[in-house]
Amino acid sequence: MTIGEILARKRDGGELSAEEIAFFVRGIVDGSIADYQAAAWLMAIFIRGMSRRETRDLTLAMRDSGERIDLSDLDARPALDKHSTGGVGDKTTLVVVPILAAVGVPMLKMSGRGLGFSGGTVDKLESIPGFRTELSVAEAKDQVRRIGAALIGQSANLAPADKMLYGLRDVTATIESLPLIGSSIMSKKLAAGAERIVLDVKAGRGAFMRTRQEAEALAALLIELGTGAGVPTSAVLSSMDEPLGRAVGNALEVAEALCLLRWPDTAEPVFAAFCRDVAAHALVSANRAPDRHTGGGLVDELLRGGAANRKFAEIVAAQGGPAAGDGILAALPRAPIERAVSAPADGTIVALDARKIGELAMRMGAGRAKKSDAIDPAVGILLHAKNGGAVRAGDPLATLHIRQSDAARAPAFEADLLAACTISDDPKAEVERFWSVVP
Amino acid sequence: MTIGEILARKRDGGELSAEEIAFFVRGIVDGSIADYQAAAWLMAIFIRGMSRRETRDLTLAMRDSGERIDLSDLDARPALDKHSTGGVGDKTTLVVVPILAAVGVPMLKMSGRGLGFSGGTVDKLESIPGFRTELSVAEAKDQVRRIGAALIGQSANLAPADKMLYGLRDVTATIESLPLIGSSIMSKKLAAGAERIVLDVKAGRGAFMRTRQEAEALAALLIELGTGAGVPTSAVLSSMDEPLGRAVGNALEVAEALCLLRWPDTAEPVFAAFCRDVAAHALVSANRAPDRHTGGGLVDELLRGGAANRKFAEIVAAQGGPAAGDGILAALPRAPIERAVSAPADGTIVALDARKIGELAMRMGAGRAKKSDAIDPAVGILLHAKNGGAVRAGDPLATLHIRQSDAARAPAFEADLLAACTISDDPKAEVERFWSVVP
Repeated sequence: MTIGEILARKRDGGELSAEEIAFFVRGIVDGSIADYQAAAWLMAIFIRGMSRRETRDLTLAMRDSGERIDLSDLDARPALDKHSTGGVGDKTTLVVVPILAAVGVPMLKMSGRGLGFSGGTVDKLESIPGFRTELSVAEAKDQVRRIGAALIGQSANLAPADKMLYGLRDVTATIESLPLIGSSIMSKKLAAGAERIVLDVKAGRGAFMRTRQEAEALAALLIELGTGAGVPTSAVLSSMDEPLGRAVGNALEVAEALCLLRWPDTAEPVFAAFCRDVAAHALVSANRAPDRHTGGGLVDELLRGGAANRKFAEIVAAQGGPAAGDGILAALPRAPIERAVSAPADGTIVALDARKIGELAMRMGAGRAKKSDAIDPAVGILLHAKNGGAVRAGDPLATLHIRQSDAARAPAFEADLLAACTISDDPKAEVERFWSVVP
Repeated sequence: MTIGEILARKRDGGELSAEEIAFFVRGIVDGSIADYQAAAWLMAIFIRGMSRRETRDLTLAMRDSGERIDLSDLDARPALDKHSTGGVGDKTTLVVVPILAAVGVPMLKMSGRGLGFSGGTVDKLESIPGFRTELSVAEAKDQVRRIGAALIGQSANLAPADKMLYGLRDVTATIESLPLIGSSIMSKKLAAGAERIVLDVKAGRGAFMRTRQEAEALAALLIELGTGAGVPTSAVLSSMDEPLGRAVGNALEVAEALCLLRWPDTAEPVFAAFCRDVAAHALVSANRAPDRHTGGGLVDELLRGGAANRKFAEIVAAQGGPAAGDGILAALPRAPIERAVSAPADGTIVALDARKIGELAMRMGAGRAKKSDAIDPAVGILLHAKNGGAVRAGDPLATLHIRQSDAARAPAFEADLLAACTISDDPKAEVERFWSVVP
């Protein structure tokens, strides 16, 4: 078996055997296959595609390319993992993990950092002063045993083949390939050892999948890959045309999640309902509720009774943050400049372009254009109106939280925000929004 | 313009502009485009193809990526170049260059080394003791002014973009792509400065193009690329199912070429007729004959009168080899072991598999499996019978010229030679062989 034969077969539209895929994945990890050969392979895969069998074999080979975490020896079972395909303002993990942990579902949740218009949970958590995301797997597992959950960065040796291929895909125009996206996500999830996986697959302007159809195809593939590998997997599909909730930016999003945990009735209603639904679905998946309706009721109890909020405070304290819920809110950094943006006209908000807003937040310092960029945890955007909302000219539309060094750019940021916002004077204007659970 | 955009366009089957192709070629030479990005580009080109316009733009961009030799200031005109797409036993250059030079057609001929089953003119020339192929372009041009021809290795800075891409194609399964093959050949030919190009395009078991149809398609592309760049280009198409002539191996092939130049009537007839035809066609191309028929007569005169033989001796002497024709033959190295191979049965030879014989010669030390391998100039195969010939069991079929260290492998080499040879007992058995000139 040679890399030349493997490249030629895929180049010509053929199907690779499990052995050939395993040979390729071993070769990129041990260096016997060069990065230019891997790049040619990725381009051939992008153009020729992969059968479901090939995609499954690639997923398993990448899962097995490094460390595999074993969570089957925890007392509480089943360990659950929750993964979002990424969006703007998506702080769902910060709400769902403490809800699940509060009823004893063990969650060793590994998250990534943000890149481009999309944020990352690790960056958000690190806006909490003192919060350590770099626990070892052993430390995190020990914490899960003690308090039910840990929120950490990704272990360096988890699916190293995926890390190498992802780096190459990023610079060879081979990102948007369903088999490559699916195997990348699921190899890491499967290596992380959870016994149930709940996926949050987003579609729209602020997501990597632009259309609902693409997101449905991705969700179906991910579910098949997870379930096929022996881990029951399901997904919540949702639209990501406007940012989720009101906050975009690291500390602002932690604050919004904290407020939902503490005062659920005051939260932005779409965000609150979405978190409730994901958590309810996860409770069913983890055998803590017979159906989503019952699960939803349990979520309400956990929020209103304060259990979820206390669990979040417990996690934060265990990982080096301030000792109690109020302390966290007060400890979060605040940007020195707050600039109010007002609605320029009367009407109904029909678009708050999530991608434009995500990119604005990135330019303001909340995100990274490239991996090595530093971020400012305090900056970001707080939206006072959401899609479908009626405004009058002069009403508060958003507050921009700006760092001192960007004071001169504030008017430009305001213009960018207004450019992301569409106000219709049609009184019957409607906004499409969806979410659904598969299967 | 970014490499990501260029990769994405070709990946999706689009057409690249001349500017995008020039950006890519500049980028691989100046290092701003990484080899893994070039590898992904090559795979996309292989699968998606290139329009004639793109292929022409790639050829010109690669031609301009390094040194361009100017031969327009020679007194004699037009300078002519001859290029073979490669075959087994192909020593045509050694015959055609002195014929052309003998009537004053200037030829600064750059050649390559052999790789795999196919030999290279530079290796063959270096089997002549003292022969220097590494002249600078200035030295070679000076020699062309003095004696009409020079036979040298390829200038290091000629079409460096092609050199880089070829190296990558070799390890990414992207060799056999018509636009990539065509632009690779013609970028170097056009950078080498000739004013007329005659191509020798081979098809069959011992060529890179396996079928006549593929060779015709390649010839049509090469002619279009050359003529489109302002250099009148034509091609001789020929079959390469059996080795050309009798000799396969470096010194053996030089000896065969020398014998044809010295005693043309005793040469293997197909090889002699082929050389005569290529040379006649080149004489027409260089305005030294009105048509191929007249050109053929001129070739006969130049051979029988000894002018071509004297010119070859002059070139050899100028480049450091022995002083006269006979001296060259006597100076060629000889292998210590000569093993006769006899026909195993009566019949007609219907196949002498050029690829198998080329690979056997390579294993015997005449060629390279990889670029860094050393070769032995003396070893090789001399065929005493050719396709279509009638033999009786026990007749001499070939002589294997073997190095001392391979003494024990001689029986295996003999078996390999017999495996390449098919003898038919059908008295009406025929062998297909073709050549033709385009356009």
